[in-house]
Amino acid sequence: MTLSRLIVTSGANIRVILKWGCVLVPMSACIGTLCAIFLWLLDQVTACRIAHPGLLWLLPLAGVAVGLAYHGFGRCAEGGNNLIIDQIHEPGGGVPLRMAPLVLVSTVISHLFGASVGREGTAVQIGGSLASGFGRLFRLEPHEVRIVLTSGIAAGFGAVFGTPIAGAIFALEVLSIGQINYRPLLPAAFSSIFADWVCHSWGIHHTSYRVTFGGAPDWGGSVFHMNPILLAKVGVAAVCFGLASLLFAESVHRLTPVIRRTCPVAWLRPAIGGVLTIALVHCVGSRDYLGLGVVAATQDGASIVNFFHTGDYTWSWLYKLLFTVAVLATGYKGGEVTPLFFIGAGLGNTLSGLLGVPVDLLASVGFVAVFAGAANTPLACTFMGIELFGATNIVYIATGCFVAYLCSGHSGIYLSQRVRVAKH
Amino acid sequence: MTLSRLIVTSGANIRVILKWGCVLVPMSACIGTLCAIFLWLLDQVTACRIAHPGLLWLLPLAGVAVGLAYHGFGRCAEGGNNLIIDQIHEPGGGVPLRMAPLVLVSTVISHLFGASVGREGTAVQIGGSLASGFGRLFRLEPHEVRIVLTSGIAAGFGAVFGTPIAGAIFALEVLSIGQINYRPLLPAAFSSIFADWVCHSWGIHHTSYRVTFGGAPDWGGSVFHMNPILLAKVGVAAVCFGLASLLFAESVHRLTPVIRRTCPVAWLRPAIGGVLTIALVHCVGSRDYLGLGVVAATQDGASIVNFFHTGDYTWSWLYKLLFTVAVLATGYKGGEVTPLFFIGAGLGNTLSGLLGVPVDLLASVGFVAVFAGAANTPLACTFMGIELFGATNIVYIATGCFVAYLCSGHSGIYLSQRVRVAKH
Repeated sequence: MTLSRLIVTSGANIRVILKWGCVLVPMSACIGTLCAIFLWLLDQVTACRIAHPGLLWLLPLAGVAVGLAYHGFGRCAEGGNNLIIDQIHEPGGGVPLRMAPLVLVSTVISHLFGASVGREGTAVQIGGSLASGFGRLFRLEPHEVRIVLTSGIAAGFGAVFGTPIAGAIFALEVLSIGQINYRPLLPAAFSSIFADWVCHSWGIHHTSYRVTFGGAPDWGGSVFHMNPILLAKVGVAAVCFGLASLLFAESVHRLTPVIRRTCPVAWLRPAIGGVLTIALVHCVGSRDYLGLGVVAATQDGASIVNFFHTGDYTWSWLYKLLFTVAVLATGYKGGEVTPLFFIGAGLGNTLSGLLGVPVDLLASVGFVAVFAGAANTPLACTFMGIELFGATNIVYIATGCFVAYLCSGHSGIYLSQRVRVAKH
Repeated sequence: MTLSRLIVTSGANIRVILKWGCVLVPMSACIGTLCAIFLWLLDQVTACRIAHPGLLWLLPLAGVAVGLAYHGFGRCAEGGNNLIIDQIHEPGGGVPLRMAPLVLVSTVISHLFGASVGREGTAVQIGGSLASGFGRLFRLEPHEVRIVLTSGIAAGFGAVFGTPIAGAIFALEVLSIGQINYRPLLPAAFSSIFADWVCHSWGIHHTSYRVTFGGAPDWGGSVFHMNPILLAKVGVAAVCFGLASLLFAESVHRLTPVIRRTCPVAWLRPAIGGVLTIALVHCVGSRDYLGLGVVAATQDGASIVNFFHTGDYTWSWLYKLLFTVAVLATGYKGGEVTPLFFIGAGLGNTLSGLLGVPVDLLASVGFVAVFAGAANTPLACTFMGIELFGATNIVYIATGCFVAYLCSGHSGIYLSQRVRVAKH
């Protein structure tokens, strides 16, 4: 390479970097800020819901209000995560800007009245919607729109969970099953890291999970990062995690058309989910499965944090699955990832006793593995496990995610995901 | 899914698992054992080389002996890593079994007499050659041969560096630029984890690197996993790491045809590399750049371990590059990865002073980033950084690997790698 060519190339590269900086810095700052507002609101409404248990009775009404809001103003924003994934595969009409405020307010309302929904759908939709807006503002070409939308997903995901590298890889992995494309790798990583930092700078702190397990000693007493007997047990548990992902995704996919046939008026459907939730609370006899479920209202209540200790949570994972399927199939907003963390950590807690595996290890593996199976994102979930629980148990975490991915079938929770390479 | 269909599917799945277990368990055990023997031999010959400095004078002769061995018995084994990658893309004649002993003995001889070569080429070739043998033994179909060869690469890489998850992802990533295919994910992870464990069980311990940096405090004094000023500095360093990868790969690719024209007799060429190495030792005035370079012969000598502390190592990275290019372009065996670790950690050490970044942080980022750029394997190198240095600095490690990958051009050290998605 001659010197003149080097200078020309460097000049062009600097222009490209500046252009992308102008798009991604303000975009990630906005997404990080909205995620911070969203997480702060979630904390407030969760505290309010716990303080006023009677709010649950209004859940069907709240659901109908959200349904009406989407009916009146939503237009194609109803498409949610799937619309964003579709727009990345085939850039077309874009993602409407109204999606961000609509999903934010709807999710906060769902949580206030106790719907068992998550956070990632909202964060991804805030990210995708703002990214599409910035794409239009800067008149980007279709191949650039793909990159900016992927970066928007990464920014939303990274900021809402406080796991920037998992956010970047999630955005790449979620588009297709069995294959990833590295083209948006750096913009996605930059957006995710920057949005996570902005969210942190607003004073938002993420829950930290305590995994004390540091490796099983072998025959000689020395500790290595892999013990074959323990790994075999984790592998067996991971098959269960994958089947739980399959059960979850299939339940949502099969219940949705049934609800549609039962109630042809879209905005009325959430009322069914609300009534089902109230019925489930009375059948199960616990309010632990309402809302996010990261921290419980009572000291020993079923919650993600408590699943890292021993306790009597045998069927918690299944109850959470029922609560979540009931509201997602009837149109509540928020997403499924935090409930999947709950189901995974809860199932890990239950299996740890049966298999003789340290409870914190199997709760942490389940936490990411059920999500890996349901979203078909094994590498992002491995990174997430590392970012949340440290690198010590990386072999078990990766095995959990890879095996669950392989056992969860091809449908997954995102219907717009394309099957590029069959799993088996 | 009906119960009968579930039973039939489960039966088929169990048969598939048993079949792959029969192939992968003995294969990974053999690869892990050969890697253990190889690492043990490397330790012995390195100690012997340091104890007998005069051996260096015999390096040209040793190189010719290796050249003659390949000339007499090598046949297509000369193709090395590229032959294995080609056989995965288009399964055909397979990889000869003789490749494993030939490359093992040749690499050990190269190290005994002081050639600046690595270990990964040898490990990957042991893995690929044994995997191909097992593929023939079990009469696998072409699509299964692809999976078993990829698993062989993963097993060799995972065992030789003690980084099983990086080994699995490396095997997937090294085949193509810009895209990975998840089909062999689980077999590769299983083989890598199992081979690493077998290698460990033979009593092999890997060098541990000490990174004490745990995050830079922000304005308020609190420590977060990302500090924007520090990240910007790491980004600048990562561009240099990427350019170092480019310089390394281009130097090997450009010097090789010059050597070929100068010396048409293939087995004689290593003599040139041997003489060049002796000349370089006298020009530079140091023997620190011979062999692996993980640990130095003297307390403050240039070595990967010492680059994690401050010291006067300004041009060490460039010297190592010259020593390595000289022997790789003239046909010595062993691979380029450990020298790339040396170049990266050394350049990180040098840049840490210029940029005001903690030396252990930038040495650890450089360690994996130069390799990420040269091999076009950003995710595997991020996992490697996590497995070697822990999860604390994951944002800096990932940024280093992703930026270096983007800045290193499309040629890389593996010529059989196919460009699936251009980097920019």
